[in-house]
Amino acid sequence: MANRKQIKFGALIHGVGGNVSAWRHPEVPADASVNFEFYKTQAQTAEAGKFDLVFIADGLYINEKSIPHFLNRFEPITILSALAAVTSKIGLVGTLSSSYSEPFTVARQFGSLDQISGGRAGWNVVTSPLEGSAKNYSKTDHPTHDERYQIAEEYLEVTRGLWDSWEDDAFVRNKETGVFFDPSKLHRLDHKGKYFSVQGPLNVARSKQGHPVVFQAGSSESGKKLAAKSADAVFTGHENIEDAKSFYKDVKDRTVAYGRSADDIAILPGIGPIIGRTEEEAEQKYQEIANLVTIENALDYLGRFFEHHDFSQYPLDEPFPELGDLGSNSFRSGTDKIKKVAKEQNLTLRQVALSSATPRSAFIGTPEKIADLIQQWHEEGAADGFIIHSSLPSGLHDFVNLVVPILQERGIYRTDYESDTLRGNLGIPIPANRYAVAEVTG
Amino acid sequence: MANRKQIKFGALIHGVGGNVSAWRHPEVPADASVNFEFYKTQAQTAEAGKFDLVFIADGLYINEKSIPHFLNRFEPITILSALAAVTSKIGLVGTLSSSYSEPFTVARQFGSLDQISGGRAGWNVVTSPLEGSAKNYSKTDHPTHDERYQIAEEYLEVTRGLWDSWEDDAFVRNKETGVFFDPSKLHRLDHKGKYFSVQGPLNVARSKQGHPVVFQAGSSESGKKLAAKSADAVFTGHENIEDAKSFYKDVKDRTVAYGRSADDIAILPGIGPIIGRTEEEAEQKYQEIANLVTIENALDYLGRFFEHHDFSQYPLDEPFPELGDLGSNSFRSGTDKIKKVAKEQNLTLRQVALSSATPRSAFIGTPEKIADLIQQWHEEGAADGFIIHSSLPSGLHDFVNLVVPILQERGIYRTDYESDTLRGNLGIPIPANRYAVAEVTG
Repeated sequence: MANRKQIKFGALIHGVGGNVSAWRHPEVPADASVNFEFYKTQAQTAEAGKFDLVFIADGLYINEKSIPHFLNRFEPITILSALAAVTSKIGLVGTLSSSYSEPFTVARQFGSLDQISGGRAGWNVVTSPLEGSAKNYSKTDHPTHDERYQIAEEYLEVTRGLWDSWEDDAFVRNKETGVFFDPSKLHRLDHKGKYFSVQGPLNVARSKQGHPVVFQAGSSESGKKLAAKSADAVFTGHENIEDAKSFYKDVKDRTVAYGRSADDIAILPGIGPIIGRTEEEAEQKYQEIANLVTIENALDYLGRFFEHHDFSQYPLDEPFPELGDLGSNSFRSGTDKIKKVAKEQNLTLRQVALSSATPRSAFIGTPEKIADLIQQWHEEGAADGFIIHSSLPSGLHDFVNLVVPILQERGIYRTDYESDTLRGNLGIPIPANRYAVAEVTG
Repeated sequence: MANRKQIKFGALIHGVGGNVSAWRHPEVPADASVNFEFYKTQAQTAEAGKFDLVFIADGLYINEKSIPHFLNRFEPITILSALAAVTSKIGLVGTLSSSYSEPFTVARQFGSLDQISGGRAGWNVVTSPLEGSAKNYSKTDHPTHDERYQIAEEYLEVTRGLWDSWEDDAFVRNKETGVFFDPSKLHRLDHKGKYFSVQGPLNVARSKQGHPVVFQAGSSESGKKLAAKSADAVFTGHENIEDAKSFYKDVKDRTVAYGRSADDIAILPGIGPIIGRTEEEAEQKYQEIANLVTIENALDYLGRFFEHHDFSQYPLDEPFPELGDLGSNSFRSGTDKIKKVAKEQNLTLRQVALSSATPRSAFIGTPEKIADLIQQWHEEGAADGFIIHSSLPSGLHDFVNLVVPILQERGIYRTDYESDTLRGNLGIPIPANRYAVAEVTG
């Protein structure tokens, strides 16, 4: 079992780089989002760094304004399954929408990935922020934000129920007697709810980690509720330690209020470290990346969060426009924050767009400085660990080779995996099978 | 480009063996259907034998009467993606239902597998024969056989349209100019049909084989129509060369009637060769496998084709019972054939059940005999190739090591892959992108 006091790490692998124009950087393979060798190398680098997991994000709608690495990219189930075959310890976590899929299929695909990988699968439940998704799925309307979360809650109940279809000792496989399984350990779910009717049983058994690890990545009110009630881990994003601490405490308190232990959920903010041998070198790297972004790219990028709103209609150097409710049914926690910060700091549209496209991370500097910040966030209750999203491929490599050894030296990060499973490494309990009768011992 | 006059081979990998009780055989790992090392070894053996493809079957409903290797098995998209990472030339074909999935997701998952594997993906479109599937997918009714095929036809149109979202030269990726793609080469599908409304575009580009290869495996009237109109390949099953020739001619004629070339579709019957150094050894191997099946197992197996009908209610040694329409909405071509043969040959229920559970293949004998039969079927227009389903894991190994060299020696089977893509090896053309304007040259 992992020591929960140690820091956890994930690596977000997202193709052509950390901002809308990072693909233009000389070191980025411009086809990275559909380049298997690229994904394989990144995953193996993260595994060499003893990371808990790789993370594959996703979306179900693009248009000609979408950012390059969303246009043409691997679908999470497929790329994670391929990575399962070329890694052995690292967790494999991917996004899949509960608004535009069927729980029987999703339970199967993640259950199967969990078997293929020997207990390393994780599912990031998203409700699909983009309205356009409905048009790709024969639906007239995109459900509202609140309804999407109600669907997600029932969806998760169904999925978890299906994952328990087979008790762990159901498969007898006795060649002599010809008994393959014990029918008393096979269970039908017979779920009938508001959104789903699913009979079961599922045609894949539990892996050695019980269920795939369930991630939640929305930071809205509904997102936090779902996380506290049902998730094993949260992928969040905060630009400063105060916000991160307050989110962390909020979600842990809510989790306890649902009758769970604070340790049942791992909170992992995403950070984009930029590492230099000196502060100046790191700052120079940041500028190099930021300068690749044109203002047109930045406006398109910003627009995506607001239901592909066209920001080119506003003057660039006047205060950020009043948008009313726009964006509240898509990436709500993100769009709320953008509006709030713009107002408080009296920012222009240009400033908002460029800083959204290349957020200035607190984690820019020397390996020592970044290790200090990570240690501080962890010790002060802002994070159980971090999802590293590097602006450039070398960022992950530098992190593993320069920052990880410092944290290992300080005794706050593993030098080897504690377990073969994702739950084992994250230190999250294996869920008991709902149907298994607890054995009474005298 | 492959030589279409050469024989093609696929390997069906289906976990715990070729009949309902094959898992009891000493050489079969009893957990094979969820054993990644088993699948990997089988796929690599088939690749060593220069097979065109591996094939993963599927189903969306089980109950306590289902046969062992259906109860707990890998889902096709996940296992094929994992196999993509540990193979380099062999095609990766899997079943996915058009009755219980969304074309946007399925186009993406197969499109992504096609990119990960460098153009080796294939999709076997099935309409899901089992009524129980509806209950796992929040549906009150399983569509009728005819309607399922109407859905499948529209589904395929949508999927192929989505696969053409990006023209092959759409991605400019010019780091100097910052132009990532040419918007005039990105196309929205805007499909509005009877069953689906799908806007697109798809967020994955075409692979170097254009589209994944589309397989069709139903041999009913509707199945043959769909194959002739839309499929690149057909996985069928015939116990004798006359039936196979008649099916072959029928589907080729229908294909031509749709304005396609007979060479646009590859017809691949499934065969289960059992190889011995002598005829006696082969016969002994067959008996060994057949004898593992109890009559109870065989009745359950038979029942599955007839909507899980309970055959234990009938006397075993009287003529096969009159079943009326039962089975006509599930595996229609199979159930029709069982009824017909039982009547014609005046078989008892016991005989039908046992021979269904362990069909006596024509392909039992020495490597020479099996090579002769394969050559005969191929030369006489019964098959463009074969899908090999081995009763035991060693069957594939024996086929590759003992039969393949004979066919190579005779010059009717490749000694190395002609191409990196599945289409290239099968000799099936790359479909033109529907939106690409043919260049007029003077």
